[in-house]
Amino acid sequence: MPEQTPTGFTFAGVAAGIKKSDDRDVAVLVSDRPCTTAAVFTRNRFPAAPVIYDRALVSDNPEGLRAVAVNSGGANACTGPDGLADAAAMARIAESALGLSERTCAVMSTGVIGPRLPMDRLEAGIRHAAETLSADGWLDAAHAIMTTDTRPKVAFRRAGDALLFGMAKGSGMIHPDMATMLAVVATDAAVSPTALAQALGAAVAVSFNSISVDGDTSTNDTVLALANAAAGPVDPDRFAAALTELCIDLAQQIVRDGEGATKLITIHVTGAATDEDARRAAKAVANSPLVKTAFYGGDANWGRILAAIGYSGAEVDPDQAGLWIAAGMGNPLRSPLQLVAAGCPLAYSEDVASAIFGGKEITVSADLGLGTGRATVWTCDLSHDYVSINGHYRT
Amino acid sequence: MPEQTPTGFTFAGVAAGIKKSDDRDVAVLVSDRPCTTAAVFTRNRFPAAPVIYDRALVSDNPEGLRAVAVNSGGANACTGPDGLADAAAMARIAESALGLSERTCAVMSTGVIGPRLPMDRLEAGIRHAAETLSADGWLDAAHAIMTTDTRPKVAFRRAGDALLFGMAKGSGMIHPDMATMLAVVATDAAVSPTALAQALGAAVAVSFNSISVDGDTSTNDTVLALANAAAGPVDPDRFAAALTELCIDLAQQIVRDGEGATKLITIHVTGAATDEDARRAAKAVANSPLVKTAFYGGDANWGRILAAIGYSGAEVDPDQAGLWIAAGMGNPLRSPLQLVAAGCPLAYSEDVASAIFGGKEITVSADLGLGTGRATVWTCDLSHDYVSINGHYRT
Repeated sequence: MPEQTPTGFTFAGVAAGIKKSDDRDVAVLVSDRPCTTAAVFTRNRFPAAPVIYDRALVSDNPEGLRAVAVNSGGANACTGPDGLADAAAMARIAESALGLSERTCAVMSTGVIGPRLPMDRLEAGIRHAAETLSADGWLDAAHAIMTTDTRPKVAFRRAGDALLFGMAKGSGMIHPDMATMLAVVATDAAVSPTALAQALGAAVAVSFNSISVDGDTSTNDTVLALANAAAGPVDPDRFAAALTELCIDLAQQIVRDGEGATKLITIHVTGAATDEDARRAAKAVANSPLVKTAFYGGDANWGRILAAIGYSGAEVDPDQAGLWIAAGMGNPLRSPLQLVAAGCPLAYSEDVASAIFGGKEITVSADLGLGTGRATVWTCDLSHDYVSINGHYRT
Repeated sequence: MPEQTPTGFTFAGVAAGIKKSDDRDVAVLVSDRPCTTAAVFTRNRFPAAPVIYDRALVSDNPEGLRAVAVNSGGANACTGPDGLADAAAMARIAESALGLSERTCAVMSTGVIGPRLPMDRLEAGIRHAAETLSADGWLDAAHAIMTTDTRPKVAFRRAGDALLFGMAKGSGMIHPDMATMLAVVATDAAVSPTALAQALGAAVAVSFNSISVDGDTSTNDTVLALANAAAGPVDPDRFAAALTELCIDLAQQIVRDGEGATKLITIHVTGAATDEDARRAAKAVANSPLVKTAFYGGDANWGRILAAIGYSGAEVDPDQAGLWIAAGMGNPLRSPLQLVAAGCPLAYSEDVASAIFGGKEITVSADLGLGTGRATVWTCDLSHDYVSINGHYRT
């Protein structure tokens, strides 16, 4: 896809000294006209202040938003009423700097939980960002929302005359039920709030909610979609398909950049009693530290995969299950190696299995043999570096 | 407690070449008279062959068992009908070697999932073990059931005139819902099958089902209790209390020996809406890789603890939660340091917090401020060695 951003949007990403490093840590995205807005938020029962703020904002003003201000370096989570006041102040600062009316800017924060935001540096950063906005600023913005990410995550799609741009951050705490994962999607399509909310909900289900790095769900997760109508109406199915593709693209980038990840693993579950069961089984495999360390070690220890399905809560008939592995992320599988048939291990070449498990992209496909339920989940391996990164994150 | 085994029981542990190493891998425990038997099995939907075998055996013959034969080095799981035949053959071999009638010996297996058991070496090992049985053989037996365990796990308790002995194995795949965790409890108390089953169920709930190493639940978990009545009746409450203490002792030994573990962490949750909610919250903390790596790093990153409670599914009021940490495993807490009050972080000494997180035993106490529900769960940290052990377990 060409790296072309939708009409009417400008972007900036600057370093404001909120992170200890000199890296960019404040991003601003602005539309030159009001946007239809939809959002999906974390289900964590300790939602961060910006989540509480945005939830009310999007609900109150679903057709009037103009901007999003984001900081990395501090999550503004578990900060109580003071934190909520900080989130509102951050929005006011951005609206003032951008010359917008009140309650037209959403806010997002990511970083360590607990500390208050350094409002003075944040204000200076937002004002600086407002002065450097440009249509080409998208990569700076994508950089500015990174925490332990090792690379920025952006994606572009087209739907008819409309363009879609997305940027995301997230590499730790990623989980199917949303995690310290922020994503902003901007499009110049004309879409109603209801259609946008439906399309976003469907896209998130099969993208951001179908990935797992470590099973943790953060306090700050937010996916925000802004549609400013500059390109006029677009076929709703085509728009929904493009949005889904864009979100899957970003979600896979997050998994590939999972903390310490060395492999991308696709888990297909078919033949489940229901789609929900398929999802449960796939998630259990994706979240199992034993499975993930085996992938890291390039060890074809498939018994751990069946064991994870067995405790997932999904309906299982031990005499029906089949298991395949294959290199790559293909669907259909490329040269799949069947390991288990009707619940029993097959005689297979350990060399071929080890070659597949040793690769950078692996697909695991389990057929439960019970029904038509299916799900696909992406995960990464669990490495020494994951432990190093998370054992000393704050220090 | 003195290391005195209950009257009428003998033990053996030998090396039969089932493991690649020369370590002991076959254990036999025999009673000189029939035993009342109770058992708790894995809830994994792919139960191993010995689990299927024992479940039927204990149900059919709850007052006639005489022995247990255990092998390490192979789980006999996901082995289909052949594996089930192997489990039955293993029982027949043990009964023959011990001069017992059919259907009086239970079997357990632990190790890699998938491969068939080497029945010839297993038979030679069981016959060898039968020749070396003695009241002093308990430590050999406890050694023979080890897999990635670094030390044998045994415990002794007294209830009136009755003695209780327990041995357990397990260090990976440990989870509150039972895991590659085997435990055998032998007692000379006279207990009815119903009373034994009730006491064992209650003891397992607050011991083996209240620990977590990595959240995985194995195909083979079994806790088996054998009571041979040699010491006569005993006060039921006293017996139940001793059995619970013994099981908690063994469970804590398992967590201390968790794969790669460097710390033992006790998680108390109080003030939950229900006991079940308290348990959910404590388990979420215990299973969070982010929390566990933070403990490993000695990093007082308490936000991850609140985040885990927030996604646990337990009812939470963000403005009510309190959080304390303390050194040791004490209840009550020794010099607790309060980190969070009414959902807001307190100003506390990072040095004191780091000193607590840096210790070998840490207690985390969360009060949800909602009701009287409470639960205690034990877990360990997630270290580089966990990844090393599980990345290359089979190789």
